[in-house]
Amino acid sequence: MTDSLSTGPICPIPISQRDTIIMGHGSGGKLTHDLIKNVFQRYLSNSFLDQNDDAAKIHLEPDGCMIAVSTDGHVVKPIFFPGGDIGRLAICGTVNDLAMVGAVPKYITASFILEEGLPIETLEQVLSSMAAAAKEADVFIVAGDTKVVEKGNADQIYISTSGIGVVPKHHSSICGKNAKPGDKIIISGTLGDHGIAVLSARNELTFDVSVLSDIAPLNHLIGALLAAAPHTHVLRDPTRGGLGTTLNEIAQQSQVSIVINEISIPVKSAVQAACEMLGFDPLYLANEGKFMAIIPADEADPALKCLRGHPYGKDAAIIGDVHENDPGRVVLKTPYGTTRIIAMLSGEILPRIC
Amino acid sequence: MTDSLSTGPICPIPISQRDTIIMGHGSGGKLTHDLIKNVFQRYLSNSFLDQNDDAAKIHLEPDGCMIAVSTDGHVVKPIFFPGGDIGRLAICGTVNDLAMVGAVPKYITASFILEEGLPIETLEQVLSSMAAAAKEADVFIVAGDTKVVEKGNADQIYISTSGIGVVPKHHSSICGKNAKPGDKIIISGTLGDHGIAVLSARNELTFDVSVLSDIAPLNHLIGALLAAAPHTHVLRDPTRGGLGTTLNEIAQQSQVSIVINEISIPVKSAVQAACEMLGFDPLYLANEGKFMAIIPADEADPALKCLRGHPYGKDAAIIGDVHENDPGRVVLKTPYGTTRIIAMLSGEILPRIC
Repeated sequence: MTDSLSTGPICPIPISQRDTIIMGHGSGGKLTHDLIKNVFQRYLSNSFLDQNDDAAKIHLEPDGCMIAVSTDGHVVKPIFFPGGDIGRLAICGTVNDLAMVGAVPKYITASFILEEGLPIETLEQVLSSMAAAAKEADVFIVAGDTKVVEKGNADQIYISTSGIGVVPKHHSSICGKNAKPGDKIIISGTLGDHGIAVLSARNELTFDVSVLSDIAPLNHLIGALLAAAPHTHVLRDPTRGGLGTTLNEIAQQSQVSIVINEISIPVKSAVQAACEMLGFDPLYLANEGKFMAIIPADEADPALKCLRGHPYGKDAAIIGDVHENDPGRVVLKTPYGTTRIIAMLSGEILPRIC
Repeated sequence: MTDSLSTGPICPIPISQRDTIIMGHGSGGKLTHDLIKNVFQRYLSNSFLDQNDDAAKIHLEPDGCMIAVSTDGHVVKPIFFPGGDIGRLAICGTVNDLAMVGAVPKYITASFILEEGLPIETLEQVLSSMAAAAKEADVFIVAGDTKVVEKGNADQIYISTSGIGVVPKHHSSICGKNAKPGDKIIISGTLGDHGIAVLSARNELTFDVSVLSDIAPLNHLIGALLAAAPHTHVLRDPTRGGLGTTLNEIAQQSQVSIVINEISIPVKSAVQAACEMLGFDPLYLANEGKFMAIIPADEADPALKCLRGHPYGKDAAIIGDVHENDPGRVVLKTPYGTTRIIAMLSGEILPRIC
């Protein structure tokens, strides 16, 4: 993985010509999108799944409640890392997906796949962490299931969570299709902390970094933001695939172009240094406690002020804006006055990051 | 595993003295119940989880819809077996859990954990099967997620599904606590088909059996039953752990005793023969297309007639009744006039059966 990623190399083999699953299909980038489009959607397509947002919105009949529903599998390696663990991740990942469509997260289900031989003490640490995250996010774990597989058929513990949130009527239009020319793009904080923190826990680095994962439930922060910027158009959390991939998703869904300024993008110096040594681009690293908001220009300043007043949003910044021309294109302006096109993540940089 | 299971051997080591997860923790029997009670509930307990039914019932505020929510992980081995596959299982398992609390299943989420190297063609077969089962059950798959783990860290494909159903007001009291003395116990068909079908697919049998898994979505059959027997007290599907374990759960939750007649319990002759050769008891084998209903005596005959008119209920039978004395006890009357106590499944007979 080198800088060339950010200039968008073409995926060498289209999915239809591959015959097996490769690690890149789990990257969250172009290969994942191709797998979804060419395989999953071919069999499972329907108007709910085809919303292509972090959570599906559903009108419940006959009473007319609107709910949001999402699901996420968690296979992070290792299961404990600086700043978090798979339990906190499983709760926050699903809470955040619900919050990203304007829903108030309420209920979580958790399905555990345990490897034979897992210490009960390890399981208890994970459960304790889940309970704490659920309390912080103010959600209830309402249903669970446990399966055990033979030693060697899983890697300690996998957790799949699903979530249900309630969508207030006045937030029902927040979705990936809703970015409008003239909108401002805000990122809620520094990029890449989670990716580098997990990498450091794998002992794959030849140098010391002291970066904690940013993993956090963002629903309360989103609630505050939507009070300050009630006409917010799009929310999305740049997890697997990073901000570069997320911006491409939005540019395609909304049929707009997006221009971001490299100098405005907040990155911790330790993360930047690690990226330079490893040839990574922070735009493609995973985050688990950050979101991107696309907001009408006249609400951008109150939104920024609101975010910066919250611990999880203190490094928030306006990083770019939305344009009408060249639909689907994402462009980065460098400090040197040049521009480069930001493509979706191709291939895989950090497998099992979440 | 021998007949002695049905006389309820005591679990040799209580969970608190074990330090690692063993295969039996996924059996659905006593070890699973101990793990839930002593580990999961210690950290995650709340009024929703503590309902201890196949799905949790939730009142959504502020509009007052009542929904049911459930989740299930699926790790069946092998992923294709006579009569079904992991895709059909993932849909039916969750649809049935919702139907068992009187809900009308509506929406499913699916989280896939794929092993690197899985043939795309295999994934497509599974997805095609999921789509067909969802169509039969009249549910939508509204959200999905895919993770990939390295070769050797999963066994082809694991699928965790969650489900949401809508609970009609007049069925909101159906739950495991609701069995009443005098009620009749109905089973919707033959026991053990799924367990023996999966076992035969593992090529672990030294003799031929031609038994298909009974795997089926039961929601339409339950809908018909509830029209014929509107005061049904309890519904539950005897999956992992079998009918023996399910009856114990109900006897404990409702604080009643249950008496069943061995001669009334429908078992296919091929399943019975396989059980005799292997020393299994059909009461502890998994089913994936059967349910047990506990119904007021005056509605038992119309219920039975209704079930027998449906392909998935054609072998339905009244197998016993509910009593007030000896709360928590389940007793089997043999054809010889003797009785024996039926305990919860202890240990593990067929790992990764679902």
